[in-house]
Amino acid sequence: MQELIQPLIQRNDSKIVFVVLDGLGGLPVNGRTELEIACIPNLDALANRSACGLHIPVAYGITPGSGPGHLGIFGYDPLKYRIGRGVLEALGLGVEVRRTDIALRCNYATIKDGLITDRRAGRIPTDQSRKLTERLRAELSGIDNVELIFAAGMEHRFAVVMRFPEPLSLEAAMIRDTDPQKEGMAPLKAVPLTKEAERVAKIADMFIESAHKILENEGKANYVLTRGFSGMPHLPSFQDAFGLNALAIATYPMYRGLARIVGMETPVLEGSVQDEILFLKQNYLDYDFFFLHIKKVDSYGEDGDSRGKAARIEEFDSLLPQLLSLNPDVLIITGDHSTPAIMKGHSWHPVPVLISSPYVLGGLCASFSERECANGELGIFHAVNILPLALANAGRLKKFGA
Amino acid sequence: MQELIQPLIQRNDSKIVFVVLDGLGGLPVNGRTELEIACIPNLDALANRSACGLHIPVAYGITPGSGPGHLGIFGYDPLKYRIGRGVLEALGLGVEVRRTDIALRCNYATIKDGLITDRRAGRIPTDQSRKLTERLRAELSGIDNVELIFAAGMEHRFAVVMRFPEPLSLEAAMIRDTDPQKEGMAPLKAVPLTKEAERVAKIADMFIESAHKILENEGKANYVLTRGFSGMPHLPSFQDAFGLNALAIATYPMYRGLARIVGMETPVLEGSVQDEILFLKQNYLDYDFFFLHIKKVDSYGEDGDSRGKAARIEEFDSLLPQLLSLNPDVLIITGDHSTPAIMKGHSWHPVPVLISSPYVLGGLCASFSERECANGELGIFHAVNILPLALANAGRLKKFGA
Repeated sequence: MQELIQPLIQRNDSKIVFVVLDGLGGLPVNGRTELEIACIPNLDALANRSACGLHIPVAYGITPGSGPGHLGIFGYDPLKYRIGRGVLEALGLGVEVRRTDIALRCNYATIKDGLITDRRAGRIPTDQSRKLTERLRAELSGIDNVELIFAAGMEHRFAVVMRFPEPLSLEAAMIRDTDPQKEGMAPLKAVPLTKEAERVAKIADMFIESAHKILENEGKANYVLTRGFSGMPHLPSFQDAFGLNALAIATYPMYRGLARIVGMETPVLEGSVQDEILFLKQNYLDYDFFFLHIKKVDSYGEDGDSRGKAARIEEFDSLLPQLLSLNPDVLIITGDHSTPAIMKGHSWHPVPVLISSPYVLGGLCASFSERECANGELGIFHAVNILPLALANAGRLKKFGA
Repeated sequence: MQELIQPLIQRNDSKIVFVVLDGLGGLPVNGRTELEIACIPNLDALANRSACGLHIPVAYGITPGSGPGHLGIFGYDPLKYRIGRGVLEALGLGVEVRRTDIALRCNYATIKDGLITDRRAGRIPTDQSRKLTERLRAELSGIDNVELIFAAGMEHRFAVVMRFPEPLSLEAAMIRDTDPQKEGMAPLKAVPLTKEAERVAKIADMFIESAHKILENEGKANYVLTRGFSGMPHLPSFQDAFGLNALAIATYPMYRGLARIVGMETPVLEGSVQDEILFLKQNYLDYDFFFLHIKKVDSYGEDGDSRGKAARIEEFDSLLPQLLSLNPDVLIITGDHSTPAIMKGHSWHPVPVLISSPYVLGGLCASFSERECANGELGIFHAVNILPLALANAGRLKKFGA
């Protein structure tokens, strides 16, 4: 797809606003989905005059994590480009990850006589964990020319980014977890699965040993288990792939991190959805493409709170007129995946999507919901096609062939 | 797709009539598309008892030229087989292009002291241009065993086909344009981008030099700029790929040329849509497959004339009973791409398609329009699937696997 698109790109001064209501899609609770119980007159009216459909984030039956969910709607094949768990954890904790980095997820753990007796160090409190991570940061800034960057997490969790002086191939991250997954076992060595990973595995083992020495009198949290060694996927930037100067507006670090992977600008931002929209308005003249991420819809879905999820969608609906008043050339509203409240988690279900532009049929959906979007003019289609449609509606794609 | 289809082909005496209303798909003007404002009772009734859907000519968001638009509905992957600009121009001017040929688009231009002062030779009148092309044809029939075939075009435009004694690989056409694209620059040499293109580039430079000598006292039109070097795509014939003996009925040379690329019979034909249908009737016994091309629907779309486009569709509707009275086993009516009047050009929008045969569900579409077809039993699908569906409905495909 990107090979087809790239030579057709033409730049113009159009604006594309791309709203992601995280975990938007749902399933019926007492017969109605969250989108169907929500009172969303603005979204309903917009859906009626837009091109609507349902997008499949990765493939039929596949429940995406946040990484592949976002890569797909950003126009990158989530089966081709993989974001490892270490990288995602680091991004979620607000750490930058570069192409010279290997990221890993770490647990504080308890070791006694060479055996792991608690893989989570008794789930130590977050403030205690932060202090330990602070200590590691102070005493262990690097090993053998490799910089170590620490990011404190919740309870026993933290992340480490190993920054190498040279760029690394993706093979360099192919290292087995050192977490034995069971208590009563010895921790494993960092086993390299490729030639390129040998040096990285050695550094990892040295890091674990040094951390153990620093932590050895810290009681339960006297050891570090590592998982999810991963490097940054080598993907073309949003600018190179689509010719778009893009701004990410997201209050959660992980989503800024995902946007940064594709080369969007990702200023740190906190606050409400209203604050996010104000930020978009303030920066409207300076970018072509605005990725506006709204997290809380997913959070209530994860909690199994159907009414709460509907209320988050209603909140966005009440703010939608502010986006419409900007009169963007193309406005897209969708999610990165479904999070039905009855499932309390991500799911594989196709996600409603709405494309508003002057170049649509419209009139096929009475409201913005999973069932109405199933009858839309976009059909049921793979998420990677959303971005080419955005470009086409913005007049940013030349004709293919003569 | 072709690898799957080819071993399944079985021949029978069924007839498939394949009508292409060029640029059929549209968008609403004051709420209604061209198909929706047109009074087309025959098409509406037929759609109601047919399998309907929307086809995507190339890919989501991709606006096809006429080449890829037709290759797709002919059952050839338009991403795999590319038709270059030189070839399309030559076909459009009615010149045959063979596998031993390289075709190029040419402009008459003005050169002075080695610099191009007018890339279009003051847009010289067509009759004057024709005379110059006639002169080149008379004085420059070949270079170094390579035959030169000239085709006069409109104003400053013409095409040249270089016919080599030996078949050429597609790499042989990879030659940079000699048109510098800007006035005040020297014309460029024909730079070969591959080893195979070296001989072709040399011939091209010799052609340009010889043409300049012939034209040097012709005032403004004293030079030739060349673009779009291309060879014929190497695709399996319609007969080999689908087992069909096919007749193309088209009054515009380009569409006959496109049909000839896939090996259809392409008799020269002029006249109205009624004349085309009469010609189809006269030849009905002699072929399996009839490609009936109706150009004017697109032409009015390109002009932004929504009402005119609707009138062309109405004209076809009034003649449709003549096709129905032939009682073909399969009748397909679609377009090669959309040409919404509000866009005055080709677009990426899916195109209505109707398949009439005894083996359809039917009853899903009240009329023949973009919006009704969105709810049809064929769904929204890629154009390359139309031909396998035609074969299946004609009883021309065996079961796959045991």
